[in-house]
Amino acid sequence: MAKRVAVLLSGCGVYDGTEIHEASATLVHLSRAGAKVKMFAPNTEQMHVVNHCEGKPMEGKRNVLQESARIARGDVTDLTKLDVKDFDALIIPGGFGVAKNLSDWAVKGKDYTVQPQVEKVIKAFRQAGKPLAMCCISPVLAAKALPGCEITVGQDKECEKWPYAQTAGVMKDMGCTHVNKNVGEAHVDVKNKLVTTSAFMCNAAFHEVFDGIGVMVSELLKLA
Amino acid sequence: MAKRVAVLLSGCGVYDGTEIHEASATLVHLSRAGAKVKMFAPNTEQMHVVNHCEGKPMEGKRNVLQESARIARGDVTDLTKLDVKDFDALIIPGGFGVAKNLSDWAVKGKDYTVQPQVEKVIKAFRQAGKPLAMCCISPVLAAKALPGCEITVGQDKECEKWPYAQTAGVMKDMGCTHVNKNVGEAHVDVKNKLVTTSAFMCNAAFHEVFDGIGVMVSELLKLA
Repeated sequence: MAKRVAVLLSGCGVYDGTEIHEASATLVHLSRAGAKVKMFAPNTEQMHVVNHCEGKPMEGKRNVLQESARIARGDVTDLTKLDVKDFDALIIPGGFGVAKNLSDWAVKGKDYTVQPQVEKVIKAFRQAGKPLAMCCISPVLAAKALPGCEITVGQDKECEKWPYAQTAGVMKDMGCTHVNKNVGEAHVDVKNKLVTTSAFMCNAAFHEVFDGIGVMVSELLKLA
Repeated sequence: MAKRVAVLLSGCGVYDGTEIHEASATLVHLSRAGAKVKMFAPNTEQMHVVNHCEGKPMEGKRNVLQESARIARGDVTDLTKLDVKDFDALIIPGGFGVAKNLSDWAVKGKDYTVQPQVEKVIKAFRQAGKPLAMCCISPVLAAKALPGCEITVGQDKECEKWPYAQTAGVMKDMGCTHVNKNVGEAHVDVKNKLVTTSAFMCNAAFHEVFDGIGVMVSELLKLA
């Protein structure tokens, strides 16, 4: 039986939505493994729109579901329609959309909250004993929804290769166990059935991020 | 010496820009091969903006360079600055952006023209004896810029798996040689140093398109 995997998107583009290459890698690895995939996104307005040439906010409003449809080639469903019983696993790729549209981490830092619909879905998969995978900044969602979980966001010492390493410290302050991992590795929290990998939290080459996400998908499907 | 490869984008999203997964696959394969990549896009307005949930045009204007920057993670350059002498090869991923922003194929069909800047760049690579790779609908650019070239857009008989197969007929009418290929294959026009593969001209799984683009990139780098 093919594993049924829900993929939760948060827009389209690293600075205000889902990181495109993390989503694409996820879909390639799931497809190769023969998984049956359905994509979801909240039908809400983006926190803002970022001009990706300048890295600065610009005029205009965009809808998270509509922009996610760019990654999904049109085939994306409103998150309110996600029913945990229809799936064996959930994956949440990274990108600032996670920190802006699925939570307010980008604005509030350690005092952040997770969007209620998203928190509900994560908890429902956990309660059903179904595995979850998150990469890049997405593990901050797990840190809030699954207190005390084990995660990796890569390394905990900031350097050119790991520009966002301070995230690991916040995760520890919240009571999570942070496990240092390189970009090609994933950490498996066996108790929570939670698989995480750093992806573009690392200043890495495209194929390194692609391979790390391959490990994440593979570990997730073993648990499903 | 690392091969220097220019990648030409046309927006971000299959219905009005670059097909995201074709671009991402291109970048993963180039990265794994150790190529040095620089991305370009025209600094022009998109033909229109498509709501990718509905597949229909919506209000608003978007800039091709700014939207391409979503795929490029910010690192994309105005096409007018592309100097052929700085590169060993050029790749143009597909998506309707090719047919709407790099040419007017989507509107005019067989009477289309290629955006002058794009045509100039393709001809300059050809004249310099440097190889080109194009996938999905992008070979229509070569058909106009390099008369009589050999290409594949997949298969020439329309069916559920090949919904855009009539494109092959138009290419033949224009004097090109169309070679039927499956999604995992690429055709190499040795004389023109032109490598083409069908990508999402085929109703194929993500990993099949990924692998076909891998063959395209590999053949291109052999010629570079």
